[in-house]
Amino acid sequence: MNAGTTPVVDGLQCGPYDREVFRQLRAGGVVCATATVAFWEDAVETMDALAAWHDLAEDNADLVLLARDGADIERARAEGRTAIVLGAQNATPLQGRLGFVRHFHAMGLRVMQLTYNNNNELGGSCYETRDPGLTRFGREVVAEMNAAGLLVDLSHSGERTRRDAIEHSAVPVAVTHANPRSLYDHPRNVEDATLKALAARDGILGLATYRAISGRYAGSLDEWCAMVARTVELMGVRHVAIGTDLSPKAGAAEFAWMRKGRWTRGEQRGADLTPPHPPADGPGAEAATAAATTTTSTENGTRTATATAPTADDTTEWLADASGLARVAARLTERFGFTAAEAAAVVGGNWLRLYSTAFRPRSVS
Amino acid sequence: MNAGTTPVVDGLQCGPYDREVFRQLRAGGVVCATATVAFWEDAVETMDALAAWHDLAEDNADLVLLARDGADIERARAEGRTAIVLGAQNATPLQGRLGFVRHFHAMGLRVMQLTYNNNNELGGSCYETRDPGLTRFGREVVAEMNAAGLLVDLSHSGERTRRDAIEHSAVPVAVTHANPRSLYDHPRNVEDATLKALAARDGILGLATYRAISGRYAGSLDEWCAMVARTVELMGVRHVAIGTDLSPKAGAAEFAWMRKGRWTRGEQRGADLTPPHPPADGPGAEAATAAATTTTSTENGTRTATATAPTADDTTEWLADASGLARVAARLTERFGFTAAEAAAVVGGNWLRLYSTAFRPRSVS
Repeated sequence: MNAGTTPVVDGLQCGPYDREVFRQLRAGGVVCATATVAFWEDAVETMDALAAWHDLAEDNADLVLLARDGADIERARAEGRTAIVLGAQNATPLQGRLGFVRHFHAMGLRVMQLTYNNNNELGGSCYETRDPGLTRFGREVVAEMNAAGLLVDLSHSGERTRRDAIEHSAVPVAVTHANPRSLYDHPRNVEDATLKALAARDGILGLATYRAISGRYAGSLDEWCAMVARTVELMGVRHVAIGTDLSPKAGAAEFAWMRKGRWTRGEQRGADLTPPHPPADGPGAEAATAAATTTTSTENGTRTATATAPTADDTTEWLADASGLARVAARLTERFGFTAAEAAAVVGGNWLRLYSTAFRPRSVS
Repeated sequence: MNAGTTPVVDGLQCGPYDREVFRQLRAGGVVCATATVAFWEDAVETMDALAAWHDLAEDNADLVLLARDGADIERARAEGRTAIVLGAQNATPLQGRLGFVRHFHAMGLRVMQLTYNNNNELGGSCYETRDPGLTRFGREVVAEMNAAGLLVDLSHSGERTRRDAIEHSAVPVAVTHANPRSLYDHPRNVEDATLKALAARDGILGLATYRAISGRYAGSLDEWCAMVARTVELMGVRHVAIGTDLSPKAGAAEFAWMRKGRWTRGEQRGADLTPPHPPADGPGAEAATAAATTTTSTENGTRTATATAPTADDTTEWLADASGLARVAARLTERFGFTAAEAAAVVGGNWLRLYSTAFRPRSVS
């Protein structure tokens, strides 16, 4: 990373990781990235994933470290390494236990999404027909996450659950990887009223880069920066950040796990679902859109859905991997009227501020 | 606790715990006690037990705290509370995963016995006919425990496994609750040669108080102090401590779980096994001896074995609960020739020294 590069924080990525990916992070000026350790994994499976990360980080200690707090991230930046924050995209690691929130914080987890692609015991998913909102257990978990020092992530949650959690949380929350629904109409994206409520509680939206939920805004760096600028107009520059959902090394097995978990044997609904109005009743919407528009940086399995080898068209043009993130700050200042400080906030500073707050335990046991 | 009471550390107890038990600990001058959270429990079950301890300790914060290091124990002593150290009497929480050693340390576990009443993937139990010694995985786990900051406990292990682990561990280890076999011949007790090897590596034997493995030494405080004195002659005063195995509130369900786990539906061998030469092929030996001699302070289920209500004879006469431990130091100095410093080392100081060393992580991840 060049000394002059603006520090980048990517609020959501998926694996698998290896030294090449770590080098891409360095090339992208990424001082911190949150990596997904669980989609449908239960407690023991998530502990396996955390243990694997301990080994991977030790084996690549010249490039990365596992971050437990803001000081670790600052240390990584000072040492020219990338701080990896470990996050879960589901509450399955808890196995219904409130007490496991502190256990997973102790084991290093720092971010947890309340729901993934299905309604669960905490609340509703964006892909279900009806979102019942944050449940009683969900409220208990949010309060416990506030106390333990885990960031509440509402990315795949339904709008009602999002609004309930924004209101209920004593600490600012995040939608780590999604876009405004007013810019691209997709069930994974977030309604303007929710985004304003999120900003009012000092929360953050991490803008995603993959085409399935970005549409034309995934087409070029300029298009994506235009989405950043419009979202900043909507929420304020303090509340917009990056959450790429990049997974450059994921293959068919990883995408199948994300899409199907253990809850369905069915094919994803797939290619009959087309934007701008994909149905809100299944996670196939994302994969379907991705299949139609060919991008690798989707969370829901382009390659599996299309069942073809990647091609040149199979990438988000400007962001095949994290190295492309190094260009964002300069483009925002050069063509979109951002000051250097504003661009720095969006590409990294906003996440650093929220992480430093949200990862701090508020009670001891 | 009287200000003048010599601080006591009990290296091994079993539950269940409640405020009455915590008050008994205070009355006994017990500044620190290691409580068992797992006998046969798997990872998730042990996490449930740890979470329950978090809640119990918070609900009784005027009497106890959960100790993670020597500083926490010192704080408990200064504040007139009892520091609870959390320990496992089996490696079942690991579920065969080396990486879970650090996870359980992160969640607060500080002591782990390599084997309980059966041979396992780490090594041999004292109750099996053949002890194959510390396995390759057992060696990995011992090294990982050294690095993470978990005390290696060899109480229910076979003699070969004990000797292997004493030799292999880079940090002093313990037999937290057993007696010298030369004083009372029982498979749970430890051969003199092993005790000398343990002392040579600066390890500790915690002397148990329950009759099943103590025989006449459980009969009175004087008898038990005589066992202390003889063990000190054998190992040196720096290497002898207390490990009562007290479980004053345990009932039939707890004892059945300890004795049978999920590995047998059978009755314990029971009453046909009599000291001084109980067979070395089954955990029934302890319960059987206990049944014959009626004590409640056994780990292996007196009440279940006898299936009778407790009676006045059903207790170790001098130690119905932990409050009786307050008398040990004075008796050692008054009748057994210990200096005050020697008595203080045996009743508490030796454990404090070992805990401060063994609970300290030696690598970071």
